[in-house]
Amino acid sequence: MKFIAEIDVMPQKEILDPQGKAVKLGLHNLGIDAIDNVRIGRHITLEIDADSKALAGEQVEIACRKLLANLIMEEFSYEIKEA
Amino acid sequence: MKFIAEIDVMPQKEILDPQGKAVKLGLHNLGIDAIDNVRIGRHITLEIDADSKALAGEQVEIACRKLLANLIMEEFSYEIKEA
Repeated sequence: MKFIAEIDVMPQKEILDPQGKAVKLGLHNLGIDAIDNVRIGRHITLEIDADSKALAGEQVEIACRKLLANLIMEEFSYEIKEA
Repeated sequence: MKFIAEIDVMPQKEILDPQGKAVKLGLHNLGIDAIDNVRIGRHITLEIDADSKALAGEQVEIACRKLLANLIMEEFSYEIKEA
């Protein structure tokens, strides 16, 4: 069965996010100033072939831990949907 | 009222995603080879102060169009939640 995984990899809350700070400044310069606490990470989508949703989740978990996220500075979350 | 916006900015479907290709290769090299069609974009979270959810959505739409996404190569989607 085919599944689609939607993965978010974000900087950990304790860690400064200079990219987010820059975007916040840019938005304020555009006149959008009701915005705060901008944080920028990665969004990854992928298709995965697995016998069950649970098995697909296991593969995605391994992929995140081994390659997609740097667990020292980032945290990840994901959702698995049937394709 | 405070709202939280969760924004995804992804490369358009028609556009090649070399970063995604590289990640797919990396995953295959790790032995995770049931994975295909990897696409990598940005995930942005921000807090926004607005009188209603609709007004918050308008601001986020403007922010995406003016700064967060390059509409020639990328598409965006977002969700607004009450903080």
